[in-house]
Amino acid sequence: MKFIIQREKLIASVQDVMKAISPRTAIPILTGLKLEALTDGITLTGSDSDISIESFIPAEEDGMVNVEQIEEGKIVLQARYFSDIVRKLPEKQVEIETDESFNVTIRSGKAKFNLNGQDASEYPQLPEIQTENSFEIQSDLLKNLIKQTGFAVSTMETRPILTGVNIKIENETLTFTATDSHRLASRHIPLAGVNLNLANIVVPGKSLTELNKILDDKGENVEISVANNQILFRTKHLNFLSRLLDGNYPETSRLIPDKSQTVIHVKTKELINTIDRASLLAREERNNVVKLTTKENALLEITSNSPEVGQVAEEVSSESVEGEDLKISFSSKYMLDALKVMENDEVIIEFTGAMRPFIIKPAGDDSMLQLILPVRTY
Amino acid sequence: MKFIIQREKLIASVQDVMKAISPRTAIPILTGLKLEALTDGITLTGSDSDISIESFIPAEEDGMVNVEQIEEGKIVLQARYFSDIVRKLPEKQVEIETDESFNVTIRSGKAKFNLNGQDASEYPQLPEIQTENSFEIQSDLLKNLIKQTGFAVSTMETRPILTGVNIKIENETLTFTATDSHRLASRHIPLAGVNLNLANIVVPGKSLTELNKILDDKGENVEISVANNQILFRTKHLNFLSRLLDGNYPETSRLIPDKSQTVIHVKTKELINTIDRASLLAREERNNVVKLTTKENALLEITSNSPEVGQVAEEVSSESVEGEDLKISFSSKYMLDALKVMENDEVIIEFTGAMRPFIIKPAGDDSMLQLILPVRTY
Repeated sequence: MKFIIQREKLIASVQDVMKAISPRTAIPILTGLKLEALTDGITLTGSDSDISIESFIPAEEDGMVNVEQIEEGKIVLQARYFSDIVRKLPEKQVEIETDESFNVTIRSGKAKFNLNGQDASEYPQLPEIQTENSFEIQSDLLKNLIKQTGFAVSTMETRPILTGVNIKIENETLTFTATDSHRLASRHIPLAGVNLNLANIVVPGKSLTELNKILDDKGENVEISVANNQILFRTKHLNFLSRLLDGNYPETSRLIPDKSQTVIHVKTKELINTIDRASLLAREERNNVVKLTTKENALLEITSNSPEVGQVAEEVSSESVEGEDLKISFSSKYMLDALKVMENDEVIIEFTGAMRPFIIKPAGDDSMLQLILPVRTY
Repeated sequence: MKFIIQREKLIASVQDVMKAISPRTAIPILTGLKLEALTDGITLTGSDSDISIESFIPAEEDGMVNVEQIEEGKIVLQARYFSDIVRKLPEKQVEIETDESFNVTIRSGKAKFNLNGQDASEYPQLPEIQTENSFEIQSDLLKNLIKQTGFAVSTMETRPILTGVNIKIENETLTFTATDSHRLASRHIPLAGVNLNLANIVVPGKSLTELNKILDDKGENVEISVANNQILFRTKHLNFLSRLLDGNYPETSRLIPDKSQTVIHVKTKELINTIDRASLLAREERNNVVKLTTKENALLEITSNSPEVGQVAEEVSSESVEGEDLKISFSSKYMLDALKVMENDEVIIEFTGAMRPFIIKPAGDDSMLQLILPVRTY
């Protein structure tokens, strides 16, 4: 194998596939990065067997030459060293060459590295995904769906299925849902013309976090395909493959209250700042509990109390408080997580009593729903 | 105690004194921050008993009012909470008030915090420093002296005296020296008109690191006073007090070779980049060893070898190589540390053989000297 490549292109691709490579893996060759040269371009592959990422650098693209003098072949390189070397090479071009004993020579300017490679035929084959069950969405929308739900997955392995995000398509609507059983985040978008039905697709939260880091938000198309316990996200030069979680995702719609006793309409940013301040004293305690109390004249009082440290109280003016008076305690962390993904300047919070789950929505927008279980305080 | 203060001023002062406060300390009250209000302004104090920092906020300064409605008094506050609270308060002004039971009320806008304070009379008294043995230098010069020597202190407690920087004044010259016995860093500046002689002053490296973070580089005057195993650095509104290390600092001048066999004149940045690349493969091994070999035509070859990973070789053109040919191995980390504090574009490296310490100096400047012991390779 031999080729000369534009270093900037190589750096970007290495950075992407490194997200799938873990220094701790049961399969030693997966600590490596696979490099394959074909006449049309170079493919880099990284995998930790849960996530696999392939990045393709075309030899030519938009009239620009990215890779020259290609002699076909493949090799596996020690990922961490290769990544550091490529970033620090002195010149714009890099020459990479291998011999039959899997020795790799990397040249750039006067710098010359000789690395011990490994036989690429020992690298595991990635599963092939049939692209029949597939649909397309724009990368910026996909990033939003991930950002607005992914934080709510469970981090505990007691119910493994809850460590994933449930992806559903029905009635030309795509829905992402995540819950750790103390809170739930859900967002849907229309998928006009997609006559596909998917129900029990659960993608590990960690996979989506890594995918979100790699996708750009310039609105390129992402093709999503599901098959054989695997999901494939494909953009022009990137294949991102993740295993799916086994098991049935719980039916979450029954958790969502359909009536409310108290409805608050409040400015998102002001509520975030007030709860953030109140949580300063609450952080040592279990769950970072803060209390919200409705007051006269559409005022809300946010309080928190830590016997060791002290107390905090602050009033926020809301746009309106409708219905019954309310005193409720909740985790400031869950509340801040939910409020921070609101894109709207104003939110509606619907309560059905101090012991019942409550709902947060962007004002005038039903496409997102955040649900939080309150905390009992005695 | 009561006062109303500009929040930005309070944030800056809290940030400074927090550098002396450690959450782990044998004296519980030192996890707190002392606040003292007098009619002319507010003093904040933090201390971990090694370092103590006092920051003063004058009630009025340059015609601007920083603090108003002062009622004198003092209190000790839980530092970590106070620091977070002050940073997140909503308005530009903050009111702080205490009662006789050491309860502290902090108000800003609609936010109101009640914190449990402690009796300031239980806070240890800082040592008084006589300012007879004192001299002045500019803060930017002091920062340079620290930056160019402090990295070379020992991090091991086997010879505690080497964890400090030796500060010396003789013949109207101020010299900072640090060594961990594998390398040495020394920098001196003229102190015209200062008829002071100080020899065995050793300041903990950690104290100088913290001092460097606090000092601005705008060239304000710093008054340095030494007495009673303490050193005081005083600027207009800041007192930075550190204990000195006990013991005799070793005589280092005899370590510095006075003749050389090979002298290399090379561009600083090019040598840094080349050694940085060579060190990529060396980092797993003991000491990050790289090898320098002189070649014909004033070329230097930098190589490194890690049997597990591979090899790297790169040539650097030097301005000149005078004297004998040379092959020498050294720690890339020590070399990079020394080269990175050079302010000059070119450096002179003076060798006296592969087994002898070598010297690095800025070209045409004798005020700084870096010395490194080579590594034996077999």
